[in-house]
Amino acid sequence: MPVTDRPLRITVYGENRHEKQDASVQALYPEGMHTAIAHGLEATLGNLGQGTEIRIALLDDIETALTDEVLAETDVLTWWGHMAHDDVPDEVADRVVRHVHDGMGLLALHSAHYAKPFKKLMGTTCNLRWRNEGDEELVWTVNGSHPIAEGVPHPIVIPAQEMYGEMFDIPAPDELVFVSSFTGGEVFRSGCCFRRGKGKVFYFSPGDQEYPVYHQSEIQRVLANAALWARPAERERTPVQITNAQRDWFRAGDRPAEESLRVI
Amino acid sequence: MPVTDRPLRITVYGENRHEKQDASVQALYPEGMHTAIAHGLEATLGNLGQGTEIRIALLDDIETALTDEVLAETDVLTWWGHMAHDDVPDEVADRVVRHVHDGMGLLALHSAHYAKPFKKLMGTTCNLRWRNEGDEELVWTVNGSHPIAEGVPHPIVIPAQEMYGEMFDIPAPDELVFVSSFTGGEVFRSGCCFRRGKGKVFYFSPGDQEYPVYHQSEIQRVLANAALWARPAERERTPVQITNAQRDWFRAGDRPAEESLRVI
Amino acid sequence: MPVTDRPLRITVYGENRHEKQDASVQALYPEGMHTAIAHGLEATLGNLGQGTEIRIALLDDIETALTDEVLAETDVLTWWGHMAHDDVPDEVADRVVRHVHDGMGLLALHSAHYAKPFKKLMGTTCNLRWRNEGDEELVWTVNGSHPIAEGVPHPIVIPAQEMYGEMFDIPAPDELVFVSSFTGGEVFRSGCCFRRGKGKVFYFSPGDQEYPVYHQSEIQRVLANAALWARPAERERTPVQITNAQRDWFRAGDRPAEESLRVI
Amino acid sequence: MPVTDRPLRITVYGENRHEKQDASVQALYPEGMHTAIAHGLEATLGNLGQGTEIRIALLDDIETALTDEVLAETDVLTWWGHMAHDDVPDEVADRVVRHVHDGMGLLALHSAHYAKPFKKLMGTTCNLRWRNEGDEELVWTVNGSHPIAEGVPHPIVIPAQEMYGEMFDIPAPDELVFVSSFTGGEVFRSGCCFRRGKGKVFYFSPGDQEYPVYHQSEIQRVLANAALWARPAERERTPVQITNAQRDWFRAGDRPAEESLRVI
Repeated sequence: MPVTDRPLRITVYGENRHEKQDASVQALYPEGMHTAIAHGLEATLGNLGQGTEIRIALLDDIETALTDEVLAETDVLTWWGHMAHDDVPDEVADRVVRHVHDGMGLLALHSAHYAKPFKKLMGTTCNLRWRNEGDEELVWTVNGSHPIAEGVPHPIVIPAQEMYGEMFDIPAPDELVFVSSFTGGEVFRSGCCFRRGKGKVFYFSPGDQEYPVYHQSEIQRVLANAALWARPAERERTPVQITNAQRDWFRAGDRPAEESLRVI
Repeated sequence: MPVTDRPLRITVYGENRHEKQDASVQALYPEGMHTAIAHGLEATLGNLGQGTEIRIALLDDIETALTDEVLAETDVLTWWGHMAHDDVPDEVADRVVRHVHDGMGLLALHSAHYAKPFKKLMGTTCNLRWRNEGDEELVWTVNGSHPIAEGVPHPIVIPAQEMYGEMFDIPAPDELVFVSSFTGGEVFRSGCCFRRGKGKVFYFSPGDQEYPVYHQSEIQRVLANAALWARPAERERTPVQITNAQRDWFRAGDRPAEESLRVI
Repeated sequence: MPVTDRPLRITVYGENRHEKQDASVQALYPEGMHTAIAHGLEATLGNLGQGTEIRIALLDDIETALTDEVLAETDVLTWWGHMAHDDVPDEVADRVVRHVHDGMGLLALHSAHYAKPFKKLMGTTCNLRWRNEGDEELVWTVNGSHPIAEGVPHPIVIPAQEMYGEMFDIPAPDELVFVSSFTGGEVFRSGCCFRRGKGKVFYFSPGDQEYPVYHQSEIQRVLANAALWARPAERERTPVQITNAQRDWFRAGDRPAEESLRVI
Repeated sequence: MPVTDRPLRITVYGENRHEKQDASVQALYPEGMHTAIAHGLEATLGNLGQGTEIRIALLDDIETALTDEVLAETDVLTWWGHMAHDDVPDEVADRVVRHVHDGMGLLALHSAHYAKPFKKLMGTTCNLRWRNEGDEELVWTVNGSHPIAEGVPHPIVIPAQEMYGEMFDIPAPDELVFVSSFTGGEVFRSGCCFRRGKGKVFYFSPGDQEYPVYHQSEIQRVLANAALWARPAERERTPVQITNAQRDWFRAGDRPAEESLRVI
């Protein structure tokens, strides 16, 4: 797996509400789901030879935890939220969207299908069918050469999970990597790649708070692969520009410095 | 070209501001750009055997012209706006987006790349490069079997047009139909299909107010084809639902009435 | 559903070997699978208001049944084959591919994933996982606005079918319409659209010879929808050309007759 | 740019016929086009921190230069051919296709749009429009986050090149990275990604033998990026399999060794 010398800077956003109030979630994730996600990323990426610098950002401190400064220093943001999507301020959601447009990677996890930044990036309702009865979930790879599927069993067996089923109201993914089935017979496009602006977005549906999904090594491998895939190119962070272009602006003489050309 | 007995119900949204204040635009479109667009659609669809019912909706009356009732009776909405995108109320933009999710078609024309509903449906900045110096635009078909390209010359020659150039910050289109080049050498993905929810969106870039583009029969043919492509399926207008599904909800006995199944 | 006055000319290719030697298949399809497919198309398209002219072409007469003349008069070819793919002469397979490039539609059914023309159009092995133990198959729609899913229940329940499972080695479909799950938990991209040249290809996996799948009205509706989707544009049947183009070939004066321009 | 410790094993296939008979080509590429391509890859990848092992394979020795053994040890094969496509034996073309299915990357360069392995992988005619009059070619990036566009000017200016124009008869690329325009106004999808089986294919159109395109550093950067993108995952080289799968084959007990699961 190709890596870089520069540590991968990951910010793990966690809502951290279920963990405070639901005994069952505390039992599964005594240090919070964000901690399990962060540890899984650090260890798995380490095994793949990729160093990391990981921050945690929680909803309670979201205004200071997800500032422009933090996001500018974030290569990949992971997002888990469920019961408190509405408590995320609109300005923070817009800020995250802007940084994705600039090049930051985003991993939207499970119920983050309804997170404000994800919905804004999709432009659809992100509605779906669901049932929380502990269905077995099987995660099948449908793309033979995608780096996010590298080293991942076929299928991943998740003994118990919330069912998420089609119709899932997202734009057709740029690349579909995983499709899941459930005990009840439903299917779900569970691993979906999207490019938005200069940033990459990966949606991965396993990971309900009621089940120890983020402790599973195969799931950790998917998240690590996705973080490597979603990291931005090594270039200045800016969005695609609106520009008034003079005729022949790109030809010798009128041509701006090489470097500025490289940001589109 | 396949048609239906039911008239195609099209609402033509026009900003109608340049027409009021710029003599050059008045000269090209004395009855407003919306009238040229509407007449072109009516005549071209008529020639193809498709009846139409066309309404005009102008910015000045937008609150009453684009109500939920009107949109519910609209199969395809065309949208041209440029200088007054910000005067479109957010609630109207959200309403249009909602109706696209429900199944309404949307044709976003030229500077509507920056219209509120289009940007919300894309989830990107929709930035681009531009130059208003009367470049010749050549519109090339890059999809050999797409219905929107049926009967369209290869290339369409537009003698003078505003240049729109890449990088155009949109999601990769679900289907790319046209790519344009300009005198200055720039290229642009000028005909792009997107599916969002149960609705279809076609972006078509030719059509600056300074040039008589909507009087060109080839352009009218593209818009007519796009309207036929974008019309919704004949079914109840609702978005994809968020649903809690009991195990085996779809099996005999538990099965809802056939008709309700058909809306996903 | 949009239709045309011109009858849709469909050729139903059937291998017709299992029907001759397997009593179980004879019991399900006493007049051959091709007859069930043809009758289903005729009746369902008729109900949708689309007239048809349907021919049958069987493997035993394939050289005369799938001549260039027949294919030139075919809007959409359906293909069912299984045990005798190798008995299809290479020239016939190449001929079918050529006609798809020219604009003919192709519906590849079930085990036609291994048919010579389909494999040549895909460029992949078309390998997959399978099990013939009568799994229940559920066919889920994953595209909210696709015409092939119009009027189709969500899910289609097929009481018993051969299991086809991922990894299915096809190129990523241009549009993914259906995904199936099976009793055993496997998933399959069961409804896939591809554009090749000027022709459209739809692969639909339900339909093993051991089960009465083609007698199911929902399956017949999918095939009818697919035939409407796959029919070619009303233009001269030619492939995309290799052409040496003089500078300015498309400008006034040098410009060929309008009609010839329309074929790309 | 992410790299690996393992050298990237590249085989550069060159037809090497024009170089022997056309003085103009000899003048531009005195050591053959393959040598310029190989040196460009070696130097550029070296600058990016990626070591390489590069072999040359020429048409005159193709039977021994592109054996199964060589291809099995090749991560990425580059292919330039033009006047002698037909001299490539069918078995060698089939062998290359098979190795792409197994995971080998393929960079198809310029007139390799007509090379036997490329056509077999596409399933289309690969026809296009062309003119050899030294048009200026501008190569524009249309994908804001694709690794093949990293560090590449927007546009790349190629002072003189053969024109390749649409309609280009390929399947819609899985990812479209570059679109070119030419002095004569034509456009071309010049940088196209395809996934086939477990392998990745990148088609890049600049590079006619009459022009010094492969000496341009921006072009070398594109090829280096593409080689990094196209290299296979670090796993056993096999195609997607056809497999008869027993019910529950993937569950504990029946489960094969972890490693074998990883190859889909």
